[in-house]
Parts: sequence; C-alpha cells; structure tokens
Amino acid sequence: MNKSLTWWEGRSASSSILRFVDRLLRGIGQVMFQDNPLSGLLFFIAIAWGSWAGGVPQVAIGGLLALLAGTLTAQWLRVDEAGLNAGLYGFNAYLTGLALPTFMAPSLLLWVYVVFGGAVSVVIMLALVKVFKTWGVSVLTAPFVLITWLLLLGTHAFSGLEGAALPPVGVIVPIDPVAANPLHPLEFLQGLLTSISQVFLKGHGPAALLLLAGLAVSSVPAAVFAVLGAVIGLITAHALGAESELITAGLLGFNPVLTAIALGAVFYRPSPRVVIYTLLATVLSVIVQGAIIAAMTPFGIPTLTAAFVLVTWLFLLPALKFE
Amino acid sequence: MNKSLTWWEGRSASSSILRFVDRLLRGIGQVMFQDNPLSGLLFFIAIAWGSWAGGVPQVAIGGLLALLAGTLTAQWLRVDEAGLNAGLYGFNAYLTGLALPTFMAPSLLLWVYVVFGGAVSVVIMLALVKVFKTWGVSVLTAPFVLITWLLLLGTHAFSGLEGAALPPVGVIVPIDPVAANPLHPLEFLQGLLTSISQVFLKGHGPAALLLLAGLAVSSVPAAVFAVLGAVIGLITAHALGAESELITAGLLGFNPVLTAIALGAVFYRPSPRVVIYTLLATVLSVIVQGAIIAAMTPFGIPTLTAAFVLVTWLFLLPALKFE
Amino acid sequence: MNKSLTWWEGRSASSSILRFVDRLLRGIGQVMFQDNPLSGLLFFIAIAWGSWAGGVPQVAIGGLLALLAGTLTAQWLRVDEAGLNAGLYGFNAYLTGLALPTFMAPSLLLWVYVVFGGAVSVVIMLALVKVFKTWGVSVLTAPFVLITWLLLLGTHAFSGLEGAALPPVGVIVPIDPVAANPLHPLEFLQGLLTSISQVFLKGHGPAALLLLAGLAVSSVPAAVFAVLGAVIGLITAHALGAESELITAGLLGFNPVLTAIALGAVFYRPSPRVVIYTLLATVLSVIVQGAIIAAMTPFGIPTLTAAFVLVTWLFLLPALKFE
Repeated sequence: MNKSLTWWEGRSASSSILRFVDRLLRGIGQVMFQDNPLSGLLFFIAIAWGSWAGGVPQVAIGGLLALLAGTLTAQWLRVDEAGLNAGLYGFNAYLTGLALPTFMAPSLLLWVYVVFGGAVSVVIMLALVKVFKTWGVSVLTAPFVLITWLLLLGTHAFSGLEGAALPPVGVIVPIDPVAANPLHPLEFLQGLLTSISQVFLKGHGPAALLLLAGLAVSSVPAAVFAVLGAVIGLITAHALGAESELITAGLLGFNPVLTAIALGAVFYRPSPRVVIYTLLATVLSVIVQGAIIAAMTPFGIPTLTAAFVLVTWLFLLPALKFE
Repeated sequence: MNKSLTWWEGRSASSSILRFVDRLLRGIGQVMFQDNPLSGLLFFIAIAWGSWAGGVPQVAIGGLLALLAGTLTAQWLRVDEAGLNAGLYGFNAYLTGLALPTFMAPSLLLWVYVVFGGAVSVVIMLALVKVFKTWGVSVLTAPFVLITWLLLLGTHAFSGLEGAALPPVGVIVPIDPVAANPLHPLEFLQGLLTSISQVFLKGHGPAALLLLAGLAVSSVPAAVFAVLGAVIGLITAHALGAESELITAGLLGFNPVLTAIALGAVFYRPSPRVVIYTLLATVLSVIVQGAIIAAMTPFGIPTLTAAFVLVTWLFLLPALKFE
Repeated sequence: MNKSLTWWEGRSASSSILRFVDRLLRGIGQVMFQDNPLSGLLFFIAIAWGSWAGGVPQVAIGGLLALLAGTLTAQWLRVDEAGLNAGLYGFNAYLTGLALPTFMAPSLLLWVYVVFGGAVSVVIMLALVKVFKTWGVSVLTAPFVLITWLLLLGTHAFSGLEGAALPPVGVIVPIDPVAANPLHPLEFLQGLLTSISQVFLKGHGPAALLLLAGLAVSSVPAAVFAVLGAVIGLITAHALGAESELITAGLLGFNPVLTAIALGAVFYRPSPRVVIYTLLATVLSVIVQGAIIAAMTPFGIPTLTAAFVLVTWLFLLPALKFE
C-alpha cells in the first residue's frame, strides 16, 4: 500500500494536473481526517455509489463541483501550499456540495449555490483557522456547518431556492415514547453502517463498508474508533429512548463516529485514559445531537455535524496531557 | 472566625479525606465567588433546607452527586492543584446537579444525567478557561449554563428523559400589562430574598438569610452588594413593567444579584465610580434576563444565569482602571 | 474642502465645546467608516430630513440623544483619546438611538432606554474591541447589533416597553413566488437609493443622495463602492427571487452597501483581485441577510446590520495580502 502511495506521490509531484487531482482526493479524505489520496478515492467511490443507488446522483455531482470550486478558490487566494496539498481547503467545500443538493430541489440556482458555497467555504476556513489558532485547536467541519446553515436558511427568504427536503419548520414537540422501539439485531447493524455513511450525508450500508476500507488503508485505529463511535452512539441513543427510525437511519450516529475518530485516533494518542475520555465525549455528542435537533426545529434546518464540532472543541481545548 | 478557618485549614492539609471535603465545600462557596469552606457549608445547609421545605429533596441530592462527580473528574484529569483546592472545578458541577432535578422528573436516567453532567462540566470549565484566559476574564458560570442548556434541550429528543418542569415550548407573547401589578411591601421583601436564593435555583426566604450569612462570614462587601443587586433588580423590573409574579419569585433578581457581587465586590475594588459602573451593569442584567426569557421561549428551556454571564463578561472585558 | 477641514480642526482643538461637537460629528461619520466631521454633518442632516419627512422626528432625536449619552459615557470611562477623537465611541450609540424609536412606540421609558442603550453601547464597544484585537479585526457595528437586539427582545418581557413596529413574532414561512415580481427601472432606482439610506434605518431617496455626498467629500472610492454594493445587492436579491417590496424598500440592500464599502474601500486597498473578493462577500451578504431574516422570525426582532458584520468579519479575518 505504502509503495503505491509513494509511486503516486512521485507522479503527482511532476504533473500539475495530477497534483490537482491529488489535492481533490486528499480534500475528500480529510472529511474523516485522512491526508491520503487513496482514502479520498475510496470515499469518493462510496459516495458516488450511495448517491446513484439512492436515486440522487446530483448529490455526488454537487460534492465534486463544490470541491473543484473550493480548491480553485484556495489556489486563487494563494493560501499556504502545505495546507492546500494536504486537502485542508477541500473537505468543507466537498461536504457543502453534498449537503445542498441533499436538502434542495435541483434547479439552475442550486448549481450556482453549490459553486458559490464551495468557494466561500474556503474564506470561512481561513477566517476560523485564524481564530482557533489562538488556542491551538483545529476548526474541524465548522466552516461547512456555518456556510451550509446560512445557505439553507436563505432558502426560506428567496423564492428561487427551494429547500424541498429540509426538515419541517415548527414548534418543538417532545418525542412519543412509542417511537422508541426495541431494535432488532439487523436494525442495529444497519444503524451501525448508516451512522458511518451519514458522515457524508448518506444512509447506505455498502457505502459504509467502503468508507471503513478507506479509513483502514490510511489508519487502522481510525477505522476501529469509527466503529466504536457508531456502537456507542447506537447504545446511548437507544438507552435514552431516541426514535428508532432516527437510529436506524444513522441520524444520531454520525456525530459520535466523527467525535470518536477525532479524539481517539487523531488528536490524542490512544491509551486507556484517552479511551475513557473519548467515551465521555462520544456519549455527550449523542445528547448534543438530540439537543441541536430540537434547537434547529424552529428554523427548519438540519443539524449537520454541529454536535461533533462543538463537543470535539470542548474536549480538545483543555489540551490535556494523558501520558 | 479567622481562627477556626486556620484550624480547619491545618486539619484538612493533613488528611486527604478532609481535604476532599474542603474542596467540595469551597466548590459550593464559589457559586457566589467565595473561596471559603464555611461559606460553602452555610450555602449547602441553606439549599438542603430549601429543597427539603419545597418537597424536592432530589434537588439537594442532585447537587451533591454532581459536585462529587465533578470534583472526582477534575482529580482524574489532573487539573491544576491550586484551582482544585479553591473549588474552581466544583461550582459549575454543583449548579448543574441542582438544575437537572429542578426541571426534570425523577428517574434512574435523571441520576445518570446528573453524574454525567457534573463530570462533563469540568471538561467545559477547562475548555472555556483556556479561551477566556486570552483576555484575562473569568468564565463565571458559563460552563453550567452551556452543559445544562444542552442536557435540558436533549430532553425534547429522547423519550427516556422527562423535562417535566421545563417552561412550555412556544411562541413569544408580549406580557399582559395586567400581570404587572403594584408590589406590596411584603412582596417586595419576599422578592428581595428569593432573588438571592434563586442564585441556587430556590425560591425560599429563610434559605436566603442563610446564604447572606454565608457571604458575610467570608466577605461583608459581597453580602452588601448581593442585597443591593436584589434591590436594584426589583426596582428595575418593576419600573419596566415586569410580571409581578416573576418578581416576587425572584426570577428576575438572581442575575442582578450575581452581577452586583461580581463587579462590585469581586473583580473591581469598590469605589464611587465602580458603584456607578456596577449599577449600570446590574440594570442591564435585568433587561437581558427579560430578553433571554423571550429568546428561550421557542426552545422551552430556562435562562439559568446566562444574563449574569453575558453582562458581567461585557463589563469585565474592557479591564478599566477605576483608581 | 481640505482647507475648510484644516480650519475646523484648528478651531475645535482650541475649544472644548467645539471638540465635543467634532467628536459627535465624527461619531456619525463612522457609521460609514468616515473619520470626517463634514461627512458626519451631511449624514446627520440626511437622517434628520428623512425622519422629519417620514413623520418620525423621534428617530433623529433618539439618535442624537444616544450619541450624546455614548460620547459622555466614553469620556467618563476615560477611554483612549485617539479613538474618542475619531468618533469610534459614537457610531454604535448613534445607530442604537436611531433603531430604538424606529421599532418602539414613543413613551418616557423609550427615552430612558435610548440614553441607557447609548451609554451601554460604549462598554460593549470596549469589550468587543478587546476580544477582536486578538485577530486584528475591527468590531464594526457589532456593539450596536448586540445591545439593540437585547433591548428589543426585552420589550417582549416588560409591559412598559412597547415594540410597536417590531416584525411579527412567528413561524418561518417560505415566501410566495408571487411576491417576487419583476422590478421596473424606477423601482430599481428607488431600491438603489433606499439601500443606501437604510444603513441609517431610513427608506428615503433624497436622504440617500445626501449620504452619498457625505461619503464623497471624505472618500470617493467609498461612495463608488456604496453604489456598487447597492447595485449588486439589488441584482442578487432579485435573481434569487426575493420579495420585491423588500428590495424596493432597501431592506435587502443596506448590508451589501456596508460590506462593499468596508472591503472595497476601507480595509483593503482597491485592486482587481480585491474587487472580485469584495463581489463575493457582497453577494454573500445578501444571502446572509435573507438567512438572518428567517432566523429572527421566531424572536420577532429585526436583523439590523448583523449580516454585514458577520460577512465582513469572515472576509477580514483571513488577512489576505492582495498585492
């Protein structure tokens, strides 16, 4: 694996087109923190497959368009070369490009919106990096959450933009205990897989397996913590009495997955104490996801990865030494 | 008084159990900024009494449980010894433990929630301290507000968690002028006392007297500014036409009480100019409390001490020299 | 023009009354970033005219009162002389004083509120300046937005404060495509002018011309970018299908106007790349204005200049070098 990576790096260093492709792929890989073009490629295939199978090819196309717009914008803004090569200016754009066609009806304006959102996500990335450097903390997917929230909220104000698949605007209603049913083992497995694929806004089992493979080729601990995060997320959500359909669709699981990877395998070195700390954060991210679902109800917009961002910030900021 | 404090400090230095008890007591004392175990003890008795008298002993028990969870978590995370000994990792946990059983129905999950909230409040404390150290400003009770808001919002999303006593979710309705009645002197006195006891989420007159005693044994100016804050809060709220029942219950007064203590007696040295500055902040904290009550209406969660935190931050950040 | 300015500066340096007047005028000028007493005077006349013509003289009076309160508060707090002389402690107070009588019914408490708001805006200015100095970014009109939001939200909680002209509290409803009509050339021109005058919360064509004159005497590029911002704002809003009445009233245009001036003519040096960067931000500020209109609907408060502040911060923070 390492050999072919070295070969690829040699090739992409000598060709400006291949280097650009490399940047795009690493941009996709960074959605799950992997500075690795093969991870990015596998993630890309997984999402393309999931979109196609779900009858929404525009989602995969939107991701690619926004990724292109973001990467070109970053180059035009002459951002730091190292960050650019590591895909750091791509992952927020890619996610924005997946999210907009997921929640909006296709139209010409949608595609303008996608390109615009991808470009602006880079400016927001630069802005937040400047702020969070003060405390030595990564901005995670905050630029994606911010720009996508703003763009989706905007659909309520402009008749040319149709937020066809947005959650309904309304008054918060506590959920009915009847909706919290026991999960069958098969549903549990389904929830585990969709929790992983929902990181890319898709509820698709086979795609999740490909995503795990993409993680594993770059970092086995990351793949392990992804699965652990999904399991903890499922158990916590079920124990608290969440709606079973939300669990099975993975909608309460993608934040714990990201939180577990980030704290367990990326920003801290794995150790027994780190595992406990990560467990605490992972459980919290389920509750916070529920809290943000409620908080967004009056606005009719989805939570995206806000719970992951908030909880991971809170657990990274203390900068604890666990050795 | 000082003599017995010195005696206690000698004892607690030589026994790890007594030192732990000392940390717990100072944690309670820090709710009103007092790094003093006797203040903490008096506050604890006041709250236990108020909870018992109000038929909600679970509130006092919740406070103690969360305080234990928070202090143990802080020790496990190996936070700084000085802060630990001053009770700085206890007061947010204690308040969280009081708030959850105040607004939620008793159940097994409530107790899990209380312990979990107490533990997480310490991580949030560490995170916010890191951020606000940049500007040399204390985090106040922000960790308590943040974690409690998230945990209470979560009750809307999980059927196992019942926010039985949460304010109703709804649309903001301007209050009826009829609800703003003239206050009788006795109601004014009641409002004054409940404004002080609501700092610990209790509307109980005798407890307020004990809380004032707890303040006075540590800092007479703090006790004086607490009373002044309550009086200014009452007058401001009444002059603006607030609902009389809210005033009498102390629900518009606890934020001004905390603001007045913080600015008048803790973070600035008392002087005529500081008194005027504090007066401005105290009046503002009443208005902001009203504003946040309105802003939280769509979400169905209480304001807690958010008004105090916001106003005090705004008045501390300028770091003015008043000499 | 420069000659008379020099003459005035000589006069105001030798008289404490004239220096105070100079501070007031520059405070008004800073609403559109002009540290120039003549700009301030022209802006003041424009707003007085617009208020009088609109039958709401209390708006102009409120602005003046709050400006006085803010400037005197700043002097009492002994803020830095340079900032005081440049009017930096005046513009947020002035805007607050215009906004409160715009949205509230006249009453004795309104005037107390205006003076109080003007005074507190200075403390918030000092607080936010401290925070944003960390990243070398101006606070813009954030103090105005924050204090005015809090004061207007407070009207929902106190029966003595009547928010008679506040937007209705309610549930977000997507706008009807019927409301997005083609604009006639005359309506386009009207929208252009009101977009500029709405920076001062007034929809009044002749006042807009006076405001442009006030800009031009101090900075021709600022006047040019103001017009460009209005044009881009109009076109963007219309292309996205905004309600035509909002466009004609200038309510989707004042944020783009401010964003275009700030990025194009104040904080970056004009160049082709800066123009493109400013264009991106100006378009975004229209969408964000729509987003914040939606987000504020449950709370029944106006957006003020929040869209301008947010977008301009995001585009200033990267601190890009465009040379």
